[in-house]
This record gives sequence, C-alpha cells and structure tokens, in this order.
Amino acid sequence: MVHIDLLPPSGTSAILNVGDVVTEAGVTIPDVHLSFHAFYDDATSTPAGDRPLILLEHALTGDGNAADWWSEMIGAGKPLDTSRYLVICSNVLGGCQGSTGPSSPHPDGRAWGSRFPGISIRDMVTAEKQLLDVLGIDRVHAVIGASMGGARALEWSLMFPEIIVSALPIAVSARASAWQIGMQSSQIRFIEADPHWQGGDYYDSPDSPAEGMGQARRIAHLTYRGELEVDERFGTDPQQDENPYGPYRRSDQRFAVESYLDRQADKLKQRFDAGSYVVLTDALNRHDVGRGRGGMNAALARSQVPTMVAGVDTDILYPWHQQEHLSRNLGDFIGLSQITSPTGHDGFLIEGRQMGQILQKFLRKAEQLDQPSL
Amino acid sequence: MVHIDLLPPSGTSAILNVGDVVTEAGVTIPDVHLSFHAFYDDATSTPAGDRPLILLEHALTGDGNAADWWSEMIGAGKPLDTSRYLVICSNVLGGCQGSTGPSSPHPDGRAWGSRFPGISIRDMVTAEKQLLDVLGIDRVHAVIGASMGGARALEWSLMFPEIIVSALPIAVSARASAWQIGMQSSQIRFIEADPHWQGGDYYDSPDSPAEGMGQARRIAHLTYRGELEVDERFGTDPQQDENPYGPYRRSDQRFAVESYLDRQADKLKQRFDAGSYVVLTDALNRHDVGRGRGGMNAALARSQVPTMVAGVDTDILYPWHQQEHLSRNLGDFIGLSQITSPTGHDGFLIEGRQMGQILQKFLRKAEQLDQPSL
Repeated sequence: MVHIDLLPPSGTSAILNVGDVVTEAGVTIPDVHLSFHAFYDDATSTPAGDRPLILLEHALTGDGNAADWWSEMIGAGKPLDTSRYLVICSNVLGGCQGSTGPSSPHPDGRAWGSRFPGISIRDMVTAEKQLLDVLGIDRVHAVIGASMGGARALEWSLMFPEIIVSALPIAVSARASAWQIGMQSSQIRFIEADPHWQGGDYYDSPDSPAEGMGQARRIAHLTYRGELEVDERFGTDPQQDENPYGPYRRSDQRFAVESYLDRQADKLKQRFDAGSYVVLTDALNRHDVGRGRGGMNAALARSQVPTMVAGVDTDILYPWHQQEHLSRNLGDFIGLSQITSPTGHDGFLIEGRQMGQILQKFLRKAEQLDQPSL
Repeated sequence: MVHIDLLPPSGTSAILNVGDVVTEAGVTIPDVHLSFHAFYDDATSTPAGDRPLILLEHALTGDGNAADWWSEMIGAGKPLDTSRYLVICSNVLGGCQGSTGPSSPHPDGRAWGSRFPGISIRDMVTAEKQLLDVLGIDRVHAVIGASMGGARALEWSLMFPEIIVSALPIAVSARASAWQIGMQSSQIRFIEADPHWQGGDYYDSPDSPAEGMGQARRIAHLTYRGELEVDERFGTDPQQDENPYGPYRRSDQRFAVESYLDRQADKLKQRFDAGSYVVLTDALNRHDVGRGRGGMNAALARSQVPTMVAGVDTDILYPWHQQEHLSRNLGDFIGLSQITSPTGHDGFLIEGRQMGQILQKFLRKAEQLDQPSL
C-alpha cells in the first residue's frame, strides 16, 4: 500500500531516511537518505497510489529530476505518460543531488569524504529498495534506465524479481568491459592527481578538485558521443576569433571542439561533486551481473523478469554487441530495439523520436504482462 | 645521385644538418638536424644507392629505427626486403630521438622548450625533403606510413608528386576529425596541467611533466586499441594480489587493465619527451590535406601519385570510413586494403601476417608503376 503522504507534489522532490545500508563489501552506511522525484499528473480519476509504478534510473551524472534530463519522454501524453503512471526517480546512493554520498555529513558532522565506502551498482539498488519499502511500494510495473541507470535496471531484475513486472535496460552491458574500466579508472586518476583532491577530504577547503573532474569529463564526453556527430558539428573549425594554426601553439587559440569540451567540463564543475564522480565511476567499474552468481551468462539465464533491451548502433562506450549479448542470454528476453544515430551512447538522450517509440513499444508489452492485482 | 658516403651502416642511424626549415606558419627553425636510419642488406649485387628507395614514415611516438617497431615487416626476405630496397626512415622534425625538437639545443645553448614553433605535418615533410636533398635522393619508389606516418605519406604525395612513384598511407584520414582533436587536445591539457610543465620550459629542472604525459598516454592507448581486444585480454580481472572490489576504493587495488595502462604510461615516460609529445600531437590536430588547397576533396582529387590506402576495420581513432573517403577521392587511387582484427588502430603493428600481405601487394603494384630511369 503506497504511502501517498510521503510522495512530494508531482515534479518535485523529497528526501527520506531509508535506514542503514550495508554494502556488498560489508560496510554499513548509517541513516542513508535518498532524494527522489515523483511525477503524476493529477487530472485523472486514478489516484497516484493506484497507478502502475515506473521506476526510472538515472545515468552517472543525472539526478532524480527526470523531467529535466528526459523532458521529451516524461509528462502528460508523453511516452512515460504521467497521467497514467506514477513515475519515481531517485538520486543514487553515492550521489550529490540530495542522496547520501561523499559530500554528505557523516554522523560526526564532517563530510564523509574518503570515509565513504566503495559501492557497487547492487548497493545503489539495495538503497533504492529500502526507499520503496519506506514508500510502501511492493510492485514495480517497469524499471527503466540507460547507461549506469541501465546497469541498475538489470540488477533490480536480478535482485528483486518478485516485485518487478518488466525491465528496460538501455545502452548498457552485463558487466564493465576492460576498455570501459580503462577509460573510467583513468578519469579517477585525473581527479586524484588534482592537488585539491587531498585524498578525497577536500570538503573543508575553499578549493575542490574541479579541474581534475573537468579533465575527466572531457574524455568521458568523447566516449558518450559518436565521432560522426562530433565531426559533423565541429570538423576542423577554429573557435571563433581564435587561430589554432598559428606560428606557436597556444592553449587560448583553440579548435571549436576544444571550446565545446571546455564548456562540457565547466558545466559539470558547476553542478557535480568530484567525490561523487569518483565513487559512482568506481561503481561502474565494479558492474558485473555475474559476480557471486556463477558468472555473467548464468546470472542472465536465471533472470525471471521479462526484459527488453535497447541500445545505440554507434555507441563506443557500450557497443551494440553488448546489447546483443544481453539479448542472447537473458532468461526472459522480450525484444531488442536499436536507436540508429551518429550520436553514439548519448543517443538515448538526443534521439527523442526513436527513444519515445522504444518506450511506447516496451510499455505496451509491459501492460500485456501486468495483470491487475486481485 | 645518392651520396652513399652519407648513409650510415645498414640498421644504424646518422644525423644530418638539413639547413633552416621555414614552417607553414612562417617561423624559421635554423640548422635543423634530422636523425635517420638506413636499411640495406649488403649481400646483393645492386649497390644500395642504385636500389629503389622506400621512404618509411613512423607514427607519433615511433622513431627512425623501423626494424624495432616494425620488425616483422623489414629485413632480408621480409615484405620490405632489405636485400632489394634501400629503406630510409627518419625521426620527425619536433621529435626527441635525434631530430631537432623542443628538447634540442636552441642556438643560444638552452633547450628550445616553449620557443619551438607549432608545426604541421607538412613542416615535417618539408624537413624530410631537405634531408633527401642532402642525401642526393630525387626519386622515391614508395612512401609508406601509418597513423601520423600515413599523414606524412599523404602530404608527401601532394607536396612533391614529381619525385614520388607510389604511396601507401595506412590507418589515417585526409584531415583530423573533431573527435580526434578532442581526444588529442585533451591529452595536451593533461601535460600542461602537470605542475612540472612550466609552460614547456622544464628542461633545466630536475623534474619533467612525465606524470601528465603518462595520463595522456593512458587515454591515447585506449584510442589505439579496440575494445574487443582489450576485453579479451583483461575483462574484469583484478590485477594479481589486488582487490578492486574491496570495502573502500584504493588506487593500489587495481583491475588488470589499470595495471596494463600504468605500464604503457611508464614505458612512454622512460623513452619520450613531453615537449615533443605536445608538439607532435598538435601537428596531428593541424593535419588537413585541404588547407590552402581548395578543401580536402579538391586536394585529394589533384593527387598525381598512384596511392593505395589501407586501414583496420575496428579502428576508433581513424575509423574505416575515413579510409573509404580517401579511396573515393584520391586522384590516382590504386586499391583499398583492410586489416580485419579486434585490435583497433594498432592493427598495423600487431597483425603482422595481414600487414605483410598488404605491403607485398602494394610493392608489386609499385614495381609495375616504376620504370627504370634511362
């Protein structure tokens, strides 16, 4: 029975104490708080608490405000139709947008910093399950997520199949690949090499390792984007009023794509905490549905949740063959959908028309699968 | 008439003063020295100076010692048969293995450092042409190179078609793509962010920006390797006796692929100068056969040198479509060859059997094209 009184007004967020979370590696994080958004259009006869629940899972630097990062997908009359569904999206454990993470106060009053444990994708799901328990939610019509959110969608379907009716992991794999770990661990190194990192305990200092995180973001962004799309937009163009072909190389004489990456780095510095970036990136490195379950394919084979898989044809971070691999091995596989786009991994954010069609197709299947509780 | 007396013994190197080099952007570098290796097996009746000349062009961190980095390709009876050809391979202008670059002494006795100008691929070819002039070489049977060496092979065929009989650019494009520039300019930023960089004038200091260059190398290496190959080798394996899944993330508890990247970074730190890395990477950013020639396709269309193109199917740095692009637009295109391999860009170094077959096919064509001088 959903505790409606605990839901924030539609489109806004609330923070709830979900209790202690014990990580896979055995560390107890006391009194974890999770921030979550709820979306439900009131102009309908079905009360929010009686509607099918869609659990949305955000990507690495996303947050609970899905109406911001997936604005074309969520709303009344949109693919995730807020006049029909109750949509909940929670900021992950380890994050920095309201949920407990390295920048949150430790019980001793100072920031967690380096004392925050290493967490896995499963630990994020554990915390989120505790949130659903607090909310009184015991049935999830569909769990949907892309990238790191897709990893959580997969883990949800393996950890708590009894409450999940259907799952749609997008642009993700059964486990981190060595290439991903290489790219991601390098990003962590860039942050650690920033003199302001201070071993992760910089929260009492006036400076943060934002430069290191900006460097990480430059590279990360290039793994999120297809080279065709980046080249279409920038090619070898110089940035306006700058000349990267001058007699001496100067870092203030840039190509247009350099300026674009500077903006991506700056935007992340404004809105994201480097400590969270490290913890969540490390969790991506640890992603492996097969750990402790007899291996990746055995784990997928035992999946009991009807699962549709989607991805982007030009994704270099989670290449298409990884989604084909999921399709071949999932125990209850209900379909594979491809976004065709030069954009690469970020296609799930950018190609609204195609993404919307995939969501609609998936939700039609989910509806057929979901029988009203008697 | 080749000045045989200026050639070093086969398999060894010599350094020659090639005179002043004026860069595309108008800076004069006085008294440029180029280091070059020559390869010619003596057990043949044709004197080295009368043999067809193969001009080999090395990649970014390569050098003139092609028998080291392309050992399967070069030697008596090998595809680049040193009993039939005279093979010359020169360290590039801007390099750090004997040729004039940022770490070389400026006329004032101190290192060039930040005073070394920005150079282009064309400037490297200009210097190399001056080397051939000093050596008395006025006919190149074949110019062959991969990656940055392929960019020079292309520029050779456009700048000096009158002396080039045939060209084989491998795993390269007509110009840098925005994605490449993004990756490459980020690597330059990592070096600049190293406190030991000192604006490029660190040569009198005990410390060098080797850490920054190591960070650049981690990322560069992942653009040189296919994710299939990296994953085949390392997957999610922990490094021996380390546990990256522990209760707290620790940078000394690594995945195997992290340790592998550490080794790649360390190896480069041992053998390469960060100032050269910056100058040569900047030259890659400036690569564009179309600059000042009416655009990329117009430049390629005017090419008068019979050119075969080769590449690797899984290359993410110079994707296969870029070699297809060259094939469609080169004015005297004689064939396209693909290395099929999970290795990515480095396939030209790793897939010896396939690379050897491509070289043999190309050299058979080159032989048909080359008429003995009367």
